[in-house]
Amino acid sequence: MARVVVDVMLKPEILDPQGQAIVGACGRLGFEGVTQVRQGKRFEVEIEGELDDARLADVRRLAETLLANPVIEDFELRVE
Amino acid sequence: MARVVVDVMLKPEILDPQGQAIVGACGRLGFEGVTQVRQGKRFEVEIEGELDDARLADVRRLAETLLANPVIEDFELRVE
Amino acid sequence: MARVVVDVMLKPEILDPQGQAIVGACGRLGFEGVTQVRQGKRFEVEIEGELDDARLADVRRLAETLLANPVIEDFELRVE
Amino acid sequence: MARVVVDVMLKPEILDPQGQAIVGACGRLGFEGVTQVRQGKRFEVEIEGELDDARLADVRRLAETLLANPVIEDFELRVE
Repeated sequence: MARVVVDVMLKPEILDPQGQAIVGACGRLGFEGVTQVRQGKRFEVEIEGELDDARLADVRRLAETLLANPVIEDFELRVE
Repeated sequence: MARVVVDVMLKPEILDPQGQAIVGACGRLGFEGVTQVRQGKRFEVEIEGELDDARLADVRRLAETLLANPVIEDFELRVE
Repeated sequence: MARVVVDVMLKPEILDPQGQAIVGACGRLGFEGVTQVRQGKRFEVEIEGELDDARLADVRRLAETLLANPVIEDFELRVE
Repeated sequence: MARVVVDVMLKPEILDPQGQAIVGACGRLGFEGVTQVRQGKRFEVEIEGELDDARLADVRRLAETLLANPVIEDFELRVE
């Protein structure tokens, strides 16, 4: 069994209001020095069998189709 | 400047319907062998100055308060 | 064609840190008097054909299985 | 006290992979006839005092700043 982590974040040029809210709340709660927060998604994908190149390409295709919208989001795969 | 990544996932014993939906869709789209998907959140937190132990403890407190609900979620900090 | 909106919110007794962050940010941005924010999910489901009782029961089952985790979340259906 | 619900949905022209995953899972689980699912966010905002026009304009500004990214998302306010 293999596990692939897929991190999905809004592209850097796209404003993230949820992250802004967290920055805004930090000061009020006494957490000083937080300059930016970006909120994204993290998917843990478990796959049976061995993770060869063909399977990893499948997971990449899966990420592009069901996990991220490549027009507004960037994603990264990490094998754990 | 330092960057801390905070990964937030539902506790393993809590069902994740969104993840289930992705597993369900995989078969139909021809992605075979995906046995589980869990969806969580990923936060990228940027902090000015140096990240000593006191500051890291601050980020941990921030995560517990504003990023995760420790009753239903686990979280992990990674310094990048 | 029919459209059903499914609103999914964390149960009232479960803390919502994301909502807390928004309350925290309000004061700082000059929005006074916001006492609570809760963040949930909203799904718009489109169904072909007529929406009789049997179909609505299907959508309810769908919501319980793929849209909400009834252990930690409440959900409501509205036909639009 | 007043409550305003803010519904935030991706703009119709922006693909929603999470919604696609749910449609994909429906067939496999025997829910027939689901043609589209879109996933968005729902915020319940509670405000002290009366909700006159000035306050409602404040909530609208709050929604534009902290709840939605107007470049990629549409939002709607409903007073409950």
